[in-house]
Amino acid sequence: MDTITASVYDTIFARRDVRGEFTGEFADPVVLERILGAAHAAPSVGLSQPWDFILIEAPAIRHEFWAHVDEERRVFSAALPPDRAAVFDRIRIEGILEASVSLVVTYDPDRGSPHVLGRHAIADAGLYSVCLAIENLWLAATAEGWGVGWVSFYREHYLQGLLSLPARVKPVAWLCLGPVTHLQAIPDLERHGWRHRAPLQAVLHHDGW
Amino acid sequence: MDTITASVYDTIFARRDVRGEFTGEFADPVVLERILGAAHAAPSVGLSQPWDFILIEAPAIRHEFWAHVDEERRVFSAALPPDRAAVFDRIRIEGILEASVSLVVTYDPDRGSPHVLGRHAIADAGLYSVCLAIENLWLAATAEGWGVGWVSFYREHYLQGLLSLPARVKPVAWLCLGPVTHLQAIPDLERHGWRHRAPLQAVLHHDGW
Repeated sequence: MDTITASVYDTIFARRDVRGEFTGEFADPVVLERILGAAHAAPSVGLSQPWDFILIEAPAIRHEFWAHVDEERRVFSAALPPDRAAVFDRIRIEGILEASVSLVVTYDPDRGSPHVLGRHAIADAGLYSVCLAIENLWLAATAEGWGVGWVSFYREHYLQGLLSLPARVKPVAWLCLGPVTHLQAIPDLERHGWRHRAPLQAVLHHDGW
Repeated sequence: MDTITASVYDTIFARRDVRGEFTGEFADPVVLERILGAAHAAPSVGLSQPWDFILIEAPAIRHEFWAHVDEERRVFSAALPPDRAAVFDRIRIEGILEASVSLVVTYDPDRGSPHVLGRHAIADAGLYSVCLAIENLWLAATAEGWGVGWVSFYREHYLQGLLSLPARVKPVAWLCLGPVTHLQAIPDLERHGWRHRAPLQAVLHHDGW
């Protein structure tokens, strides 16, 4: 395997969902623009590029969102059986206030409408494109020595209101990103005993289910 | 920028949605397993890894699917205004019969249930994870010198039936992959005048919409 190929695999395997390792130091805007450029180079259904990237710079927005997430964390914890709640309560689930950069990624179904090539039969295809962009961003950030954490403890309508999104625009992710002290070798949820990774063979099928 | 970082960006920018460049030659199973391993290393909500990979080896399944896609291509074309239909009809929209490997990627919402960490507030979060796995696969394949084409001209219930998927399992993509003669410098849809890519600045916002 040549160096380019190995570098891509190394980055894919080093990538982590970061919560506790953000340094909060100054984030070089040149690096950030490169990372956003990688996201924007993702494949999209009908070349619709249906994503938007909202950089959150106002500390008040970040704090408001953090408080909302903290409430949703309690909602989830309260729904768990006691043994799972005990494990969950030890796990850091976000780094909203510590990460250098907060970025919201959204999906706009009107982009490229009315005739999005490849979306007539599958309504969700545009949403899939947005996720591909997020994974490009995640891997580019990892290659830059940054970490990324995807926060999903929020209600979509809350975030729509907080950012004055048009009704059609769906928030897909609140991402925390920026320089980190290091990336964990083992995913947090596995280290803390929440869940173990399955082997590839467990999800591989031939010609049908 | 060091070599590892540059390699990741080079791969992200070289990646294309391939239709016409598959060679159809023998696909090395060792390479295929590496590529699937990259997909399986994707981030997933609550470490649920809710994806399955179905390798399609039976020629009959591939041919049946191709016929279905061809019909859906006509459905889309018929719905277009004449000028757009003329552009669309010149565009190759799939390489199902030419690609060395056909792979269906699905989403199983029951994986990790009932308490998927991070999914209680966002029903689609598991579906997002499947898309992240697909982008990992796409970039690993590109780094290996393979091409990937995502076919989305199909009805989900048709593919569910063709592969005997359980009712809860949602097909997310039919992917064509394998060795290619080359990757196009410009995406097919742009080369054929279907749509042009927007600059990053057009989708970048600060603190709100």
